[in-house]
Amino acid sequence: MNQVLLSANQPIGIFDSGVGGLTVVRAVLSALPNEDLIYLGDTARVPYGTRSSQTVVRYSRNAARFLLQKNVKLVLIACNTASAAALPTLQSELEVPVLGAVDPGAQAAAAATVSRAIGVIGTLATIRSGAYTRALLAQDPRLRIHSTACPLLVPLCEEGWTDPDDAIAEGVARRYLSELRAQSADLDTLVLGCTHYPLLAPVLQRVSQTLWRHPVRLVDSAQAMAVAAQQSLESMGLLRTPEATIPESSGSVVHRRRGVDRLRCYVTDEARVAEVGARFLGRDLAGIEIVDL
Amino acid sequence: MNQVLLSANQPIGIFDSGVGGLTVVRAVLSALPNEDLIYLGDTARVPYGTRSSQTVVRYSRNAARFLLQKNVKLVLIACNTASAAALPTLQSELEVPVLGAVDPGAQAAAAATVSRAIGVIGTLATIRSGAYTRALLAQDPRLRIHSTACPLLVPLCEEGWTDPDDAIAEGVARRYLSELRAQSADLDTLVLGCTHYPLLAPVLQRVSQTLWRHPVRLVDSAQAMAVAAQQSLESMGLLRTPEATIPESSGSVVHRRRGVDRLRCYVTDEARVAEVGARFLGRDLAGIEIVDL
Repeated sequence: MNQVLLSANQPIGIFDSGVGGLTVVRAVLSALPNEDLIYLGDTARVPYGTRSSQTVVRYSRNAARFLLQKNVKLVLIACNTASAAALPTLQSELEVPVLGAVDPGAQAAAAATVSRAIGVIGTLATIRSGAYTRALLAQDPRLRIHSTACPLLVPLCEEGWTDPDDAIAEGVARRYLSELRAQSADLDTLVLGCTHYPLLAPVLQRVSQTLWRHPVRLVDSAQAMAVAAQQSLESMGLLRTPEATIPESSGSVVHRRRGVDRLRCYVTDEARVAEVGARFLGRDLAGIEIVDL
Repeated sequence: MNQVLLSANQPIGIFDSGVGGLTVVRAVLSALPNEDLIYLGDTARVPYGTRSSQTVVRYSRNAARFLLQKNVKLVLIACNTASAAALPTLQSELEVPVLGAVDPGAQAAAAATVSRAIGVIGTLATIRSGAYTRALLAQDPRLRIHSTACPLLVPLCEEGWTDPDDAIAEGVARRYLSELRAQSADLDTLVLGCTHYPLLAPVLQRVSQTLWRHPVRLVDSAQAMAVAAQQSLESMGLLRTPEATIPESSGSVVHRRRGVDRLRCYVTDEARVAEVGARFLGRDLAGIEIVDL
């Protein structure tokens, strides 16, 4: 990284292969109430998980360059596949700091576990990459990692079938988590290794409670990324100061400041973005721009 | 089409964006026991449903050209998205006849319905394209078409959760078909508008019986494509003659002839192909070759 002179008033950039990364946007908007955000969802080329590593690096470079043109001070890679394939490349090439999706979740999980038995759930591509297992063992080689791919969870989230009382969501969660239960009776921490999964946290929490009969801590990698972003900006003196924030009378300070939306959203294809994206962001998505990379 | 001189002894070529098209292979192997088949699954670029129409035409042209190099006499486009985007282009460009996935299913459904109320299920991309609705109305403008996208069905098939007694498969099928039941009480024909869905035919049959309380005919587009291929080859005098077939002592004449496997399989990426592909083909997938297009 050839550090350039950055200012606290610049926005944070977040990119993802699709709309799932809006869970990271939501976590960052909450954790860092003074920051502006630029989001790019590469929805025309989603999912990255089925592409070659070189292609994912190329797409990620495109996305990061787009964010840099928008003058960001920090790039967050919300996509697990892009993090696994492109993080070192982007960290060496870009003039701003870059954080991936895997390390923050792994750090939070290693810090949370007592039994040292950790479960990881994610897409087929993420689990097959072994990225979480490597990151967790780098934190503590004594950890026992149990992981399972959960291909139905992404479409469940995109359909909005995520209510903890939803019989299908409950059944699917139970079937996948039972595979982990069969591997480990003392697992006490479960990493949600996919940007979509925070929407399923309530049902995963309920099902894990009944399977393990002891508390299982869910580690939401979106939350962990927000914490990592805060630490990174703090360490560089780039956290935006609270003085700049004037709460709206409506109290919607989380998303707006002085009447300006704190979030600007770009996607490369608009299909179903507004409808599905709103579920991930937890509010309506207004004024999305379509861009070519 | 600039027809070249074709011979009955040439193989049939089938391509798909992934392994789902192996349900078409299975249907063609059964319906046309004398034919040899070349299959190409573009697994490195699956799914096509999220790409632009121009990109899908380009990928489809690549795939068809590969099959022509293997000397096929007929090209079947097993992928619904590729059929909708590229069928007219390939039919005008290629030197051999080309059949898509949509028209055969639409013809079979229009022939099967008595009430003239037809349901169509498929992926988001297929339903959004409106291809089945157009093809059905071209058959008979008096048909009433009710369609719904079923994003969870593909991952259900790929996970192998397709048993009719599987509570999750049953619940998902019931939820999607209930949307059609709410639209139409007299629907009597349901088009399985996705190469994956034949694996779910038993559970869809059972659920539709309980929802409509009258028989609902399932139209499997893979079966319909096999029938269309037979008719097309017959009309051109290109059906391979039965004399060429000598049953094995094991009776496995469907897949082998004179000790030679009747199917040659190529994919552009091997991830999970053997495991998942076997479910669609209904037998082990041996000797898959990885190719670049």
